[in-house]
Amino acid sequence: MLRRSFGLGVVAVGMASATHVAFGQNDPLPSWNDGTAKTTILDFVSRTTSAGSRDFVPVPERIATFDNDGTLWCEMPIYVQFAFAIDRVKAEAAQHPEWKDKPPFSYVLAGDMAGVAAMGEKGMVEIVAATHSGMTVADFERAVLDWLATTRHPRFKRPYTELVYQPMLELMALLRAKEFKTFIVSGGGIDFMRPWTEKIYGIPPEQVVGSSGVVTYDFNNAKPLLLKEPKVDFVDDGPGKPIGIYRFIGRRPVFAFGNSDGDQQMLEYTAGGDGARFMGLVHHTDAVREYAYDRNSSVGRLDKAWDEAVKRGWIVVDMKNDWKVIFPFEMK
Amino acid sequence: MLRRSFGLGVVAVGMASATHVAFGQNDPLPSWNDGTAKTTILDFVSRTTSAGSRDFVPVPERIATFDNDGTLWCEMPIYVQFAFAIDRVKAEAAQHPEWKDKPPFSYVLAGDMAGVAAMGEKGMVEIVAATHSGMTVADFERAVLDWLATTRHPRFKRPYTELVYQPMLELMALLRAKEFKTFIVSGGGIDFMRPWTEKIYGIPPEQVVGSSGVVTYDFNNAKPLLLKEPKVDFVDDGPGKPIGIYRFIGRRPVFAFGNSDGDQQMLEYTAGGDGARFMGLVHHTDAVREYAYDRNSSVGRLDKAWDEAVKRGWIVVDMKNDWKVIFPFEMK
Repeated sequence: MLRRSFGLGVVAVGMASATHVAFGQNDPLPSWNDGTAKTTILDFVSRTTSAGSRDFVPVPERIATFDNDGTLWCEMPIYVQFAFAIDRVKAEAAQHPEWKDKPPFSYVLAGDMAGVAAMGEKGMVEIVAATHSGMTVADFERAVLDWLATTRHPRFKRPYTELVYQPMLELMALLRAKEFKTFIVSGGGIDFMRPWTEKIYGIPPEQVVGSSGVVTYDFNNAKPLLLKEPKVDFVDDGPGKPIGIYRFIGRRPVFAFGNSDGDQQMLEYTAGGDGARFMGLVHHTDAVREYAYDRNSSVGRLDKAWDEAVKRGWIVVDMKNDWKVIFPFEMK
Repeated sequence: MLRRSFGLGVVAVGMASATHVAFGQNDPLPSWNDGTAKTTILDFVSRTTSAGSRDFVPVPERIATFDNDGTLWCEMPIYVQFAFAIDRVKAEAAQHPEWKDKPPFSYVLAGDMAGVAAMGEKGMVEIVAATHSGMTVADFERAVLDWLATTRHPRFKRPYTELVYQPMLELMALLRAKEFKTFIVSGGGIDFMRPWTEKIYGIPPEQVVGSSGVVTYDFNNAKPLLLKEPKVDFVDDGPGKPIGIYRFIGRRPVFAFGNSDGDQQMLEYTAGGDGARFMGLVHHTDAVREYAYDRNSSVGRLDKAWDEAVKRGWIVVDMKNDWKVIFPFEMK
């Protein structure tokens, strides 16, 4: 009994010591407060990358996957990509007179976001399909970059690309320094993310897994074009995440981070492999510095995945208490 | 006139000299005979990776894509993956008594490969779908590795993984040494290639783009499984290659190598970008050491892409004359 109840304490001391040896005096996660989340991450990285460790993971298998919306950047009050789609509806309304009387477009143009929301996923898919097609992939990329450069978040009055989480930037940098390959595995669209993920996160386009629409090829007199069609090709969400990981990466991650029920299957799949594993969820608990939401949120709902995390011992990051800094601009 | 007719000669001398400076006394392509193909490759690599060169390509954009069948390994007398599928039909016949009377399976079981061939692509797709589904992705991987370990090529009496092209191994190693990322972009199945491409080619699973079947996710009581369904998801061939490159890599290659009409669009797409570009085709001209085939072949047909290559100045490798060695075992 005595041995059993003190068991955890002994392990914790052992972990702290290993962490100390591996990282010396430099804290690789300065924006993380001390606590279970930080200790578990540092311990995992140390155990899996130290030669001779029984949990050592060979470099090629060091695959780390991150959800994007709500895990790497702010997803409130609406998904950034959906804000982009809504702005495109407004910008293109003149070329689409039929939208004036056709929901969900008519709701968007009348500023009736409750009407859009009432249509549920169907309305959202229609808006995204209409605004993400009928152009080349190059033109779409330009539209994304132009919009991100000129649009501000309604509450923070900053470009969306400044609303990324500093602790996660540090975590990804630590993983890469230890020869993990970091991937995004997002329900968002690959071509909405790829134009900027390399600059903002250090994740190149070929390491971005996400949802996609059908694309067609046109030879175009030796100036080949890829054209975006208004048809969904793949939805990288929920069970789509392990499927997307298999299809695009072809290896099971050893480390995965999400924040919502859409990430549950990615974490389950990561947990299901042999050897050392890390599964983490960001819990949005800080209404002052960011937002507080979970079980009943329309965006980033964390309900079943939270129950799973508790049941299976996954790490739940409490943003308010675990993160010293949330956004990079707080450090300036 | 004089200046014009000697222009090419001067360029060639300039190129040889730049190549000499960049690679010193060590020939990075020892299995390539001197000639246009080798010179053009070395010149391209030198120009795109030397600091200050006007053709310099930043490291993240150094994307090189290679077809697999007929470009990196032998595809004759039939695609290796199809040989695998046929062996699986035979091995599984006892569990499928209905196959005895059902083409194309009945033809396979009767050894009537002409009958199979007469059914064209339809028969091939049916055989692949039936033999590549109804199991987990892990079981399929094991089946591929077992088969490759125990099966010999009918003519060379060696494992298929020994029938890879030594000059292409050297080329990929050179590109990687110069910080290119090498990808396979194949009409073959991703899960037939990924189990062995890292060991044989140095290309990790996440850099293998190919055709794929539908995969479904099963939670399986916290031991998650991915299951292969008998349904085609994506065909990475012809116009599918630039589409696959866009979807999986998200960047246009600057260097691409193929060997058949199925690679034409990948080379066009590569050629269509700005700046320095390399497009190459392997032409199978060596019936003694390998095989000789092109315009009328049922496998690896090189017809339209050849005309395009001539028209647009792509490099056509003449295996017989350009390659000193074809297979690694010739060097032992």
